[in-house]
Amino acid sequence: MTKVHVFGALALFLAGCSAQADETPSFDLEVKAKAEALMTAGLSDDVGLKFVEDLTTEIGPRLAGSEAEKRARDWAVAELNALGFKNVRVEDFTIPYWQRVLEEASIIGDHPQKLIITALGGSKSTPEGGVEANIVRFESMAELNAASRDDIEGKIVFIDQKMTRTQDGSGYGTANTKRRECAGTAADHGAVACLIRSVGTQHRRFPHTGGMARKGPLGALPAAALSPPDADQITRLLERGPVTARVNIQVEAYEDAPSGNVIAEIPGRTHPDEIVLIGCHLDSWDLATGALDDGAGCGIVVGAAKLIMESGQAPRRTIRVVLYGAEEVGLFGGTAYARQHADELANHVLAAESDFGARMIWSFQTRFGDGALDYAKELHALLEPLGVGAGDNNAFGGPDIGILARAGVPVVTPRQNGIDYFDFHHTPDDTFDKIIPDEFRQNVAVYAGFVYAVAESGWDLRKPATETLGTE
Amino acid sequence: MTKVHVFGALALFLAGCSAQADETPSFDLEVKAKAEALMTAGLSDDVGLKFVEDLTTEIGPRLAGSEAEKRARDWAVAELNALGFKNVRVEDFTIPYWQRVLEEASIIGDHPQKLIITALGGSKSTPEGGVEANIVRFESMAELNAASRDDIEGKIVFIDQKMTRTQDGSGYGTANTKRRECAGTAADHGAVACLIRSVGTQHRRFPHTGGMARKGPLGALPAAALSPPDADQITRLLERGPVTARVNIQVEAYEDAPSGNVIAEIPGRTHPDEIVLIGCHLDSWDLATGALDDGAGCGIVVGAAKLIMESGQAPRRTIRVVLYGAEEVGLFGGTAYARQHADELANHVLAAESDFGARMIWSFQTRFGDGALDYAKELHALLEPLGVGAGDNNAFGGPDIGILARAGVPVVTPRQNGIDYFDFHHTPDDTFDKIIPDEFRQNVAVYAGFVYAVAESGWDLRKPATETLGTE
Repeated sequence: MTKVHVFGALALFLAGCSAQADETPSFDLEVKAKAEALMTAGLSDDVGLKFVEDLTTEIGPRLAGSEAEKRARDWAVAELNALGFKNVRVEDFTIPYWQRVLEEASIIGDHPQKLIITALGGSKSTPEGGVEANIVRFESMAELNAASRDDIEGKIVFIDQKMTRTQDGSGYGTANTKRRECAGTAADHGAVACLIRSVGTQHRRFPHTGGMARKGPLGALPAAALSPPDADQITRLLERGPVTARVNIQVEAYEDAPSGNVIAEIPGRTHPDEIVLIGCHLDSWDLATGALDDGAGCGIVVGAAKLIMESGQAPRRTIRVVLYGAEEVGLFGGTAYARQHADELANHVLAAESDFGARMIWSFQTRFGDGALDYAKELHALLEPLGVGAGDNNAFGGPDIGILARAGVPVVTPRQNGIDYFDFHHTPDDTFDKIIPDEFRQNVAVYAGFVYAVAESGWDLRKPATETLGTE
Repeated sequence: MTKVHVFGALALFLAGCSAQADETPSFDLEVKAKAEALMTAGLSDDVGLKFVEDLTTEIGPRLAGSEAEKRARDWAVAELNALGFKNVRVEDFTIPYWQRVLEEASIIGDHPQKLIITALGGSKSTPEGGVEANIVRFESMAELNAASRDDIEGKIVFIDQKMTRTQDGSGYGTANTKRRECAGTAADHGAVACLIRSVGTQHRRFPHTGGMARKGPLGALPAAALSPPDADQITRLLERGPVTARVNIQVEAYEDAPSGNVIAEIPGRTHPDEIVLIGCHLDSWDLATGALDDGAGCGIVVGAAKLIMESGQAPRRTIRVVLYGAEEVGLFGGTAYARQHADELANHVLAAESDFGARMIWSFQTRFGDGALDYAKELHALLEPLGVGAGDNNAFGGPDIGILARAGVPVVTPRQNGIDYFDFHHTPDDTFDKIIPDEFRQNVAVYAGFVYAVAESGWDLRKPATETLGTE
């Protein structure tokens, strides 16, 4: 239904575009018409969707620093060359490596039963054979922070805090605190392990992995997420009396594993040194094929760039596609890129990142200088027929390009509908079938439109930097 | 919304019931009024819901023949005694035992990745370390039946047949054929293992277990179900070339494991030898706590019987609650009951079984003698205010009481809405949170109403037997 609406709205808009264009003189009419044509083409995208299908099928899960992530880089280089991109390359860096080897938990005693858990990224191993201890439950990370050592020492801390479903994903930040901080705080209080209710909005028997605070590859304790029904089961058992659990987690961890960013370009026709960067991340967690997080993002930016490449002569500015490595385990790719390209950040005229699934974009945020706000209005008007509302000028950018935004690079955030993103994100259920093709294609259309507009126009979108980056 | 409708309809009905009752003189007015009061009470049931909560929480999974099933029987005996039932007992029998020990599968070769599988009940073990072979895919069991040995010998057979979502569960029988028959047919053609797309309607990364055809505890081959997204993944990989998989399944199996039926009664006030049997099964598959399959059924029949017990004097006939054992692995409890009670089957005036989840009952089928069809109409009229439509006279009864129906015992099938039952059934996701309390309570209300009506009236519902049972 949404699809029909969008197609209809775009057709109507295109029919009347010359009249409307007359009222917005700062947008070159020819550029705008071509951006609109690219948007229409984006709604029939096959290249982007095929890219994510192939990546998730032929490579599968792509844990940062693993052999699979290396295979993904090699695959992406070959694929991007085959698609006709230029300057396709890998920019290497190293990361601390962590992978799960074994993860088991069960209730023992009068009500013996297995629990479904998954270790958090950075979890320590338990002693071989596991650790057995009573469970102490907290409603929230705040409640744990306020607890006394006497209640916790020698026990397994269990934080049962729930996550709120929101379209904009804002529930994640709140819920996520327990994942990042549980182990450190629990360790300070003498706990032997930490279990958290999975961060996420599904009520299925999937646990949700993700990184925890750590130094190097390891955090402070063995730590794992319980599937939401398993968290409820423990809560019900605790209503009946003390609960003892056995948790057995074994991991492999070391420093200096290889990772890298895969980069491909459409060199600018007249201003090749001016860069419009569009990114995604190539790595995924190991539990699933990472179709929504973030195979889709890579398909969207590659699909959009390919449409622009095929539409005739290259835009005046360079379009640089960056498939970041090792995002999930600490934004290593984004940091490496910013350092490796510190000298040319002043030439980055725009950056955008797709990393929130594949549902429809409903709002377009910018982070432009005050003198460039009229360009934001132009882009809002351009994208409106695709069902995209005008967002504010407080764009964050995205996980890997946030560092660029802080360094003064203008960014935009095309905000995707995340209402069910955390039903799948970081669980074994993040697979290709979860992508809705027509919603994915709306994303390709949006990226094709605004990326072309900025790459072809001479707009200066810059605002002052808030952070100075070192070089390496 | 449905809930409000039902409550409203019942209130309206009760307000006008004396006028309507006058038109149906065969139903004793006092009996009918009490049945209606029990139905109203059922809509606020707590006992039944607590029974399934306690069973699934305190016992957890209850694999047939296991120590956990034994714990469930002991728990049920104590619980039913505490609720005030009489003649609470276990009737023992033995079964062939099968349990999974290890189940792993992965694609090997150019696209290495793990698959999510679960062994089918009765699967053989692979050689230690697993078996490696190319996958040969079939769209359906019929396509496998038609294939030649040359295509299959030495390979892993993969049947990708999908299941259709239906309210009445009819899609299950069709989809299920591949689960029962794959291993036998594949073995006849020289295959080394069998993988099937999970029977079920969900598209989540859960595999669906269930029994396969076998002699004693084991079937013909190592056999497992793939989660639906994993089945799709294999299909996509096969579009790209040959696919080799490694399947490693290790099981434990032996003859003569203990199981049993738990029985509890409300002895009849005037005709204690006449029995109204209401049943469910106490065992579950091992992957989950079996809340829908079939903890809910046990809660529904126990909750309904308890309401009747508490409503004043006992009905004239005996109400017998049977929590069958070992249903999942071959209807052993139902068969044992029929044999152990062969001499008194002629005194079973009605049997009903709840084993299809916990959604609303939408139709009430009977299997009564021709002379008793007016009583079916009485029951339909009684239940209509709960949103229950009049069903036909072709009731099957249920898995464990089908054998009673064939022996001439009148049965009814209160048909539950199964539209999402196979999203959860036999998967790790069949947990207590999947029960919708108000829909569950409508079930309790229906059972309380018709069970009381038949137990208190002198209705003869019998039709001729189609099968003669031996005794043991």
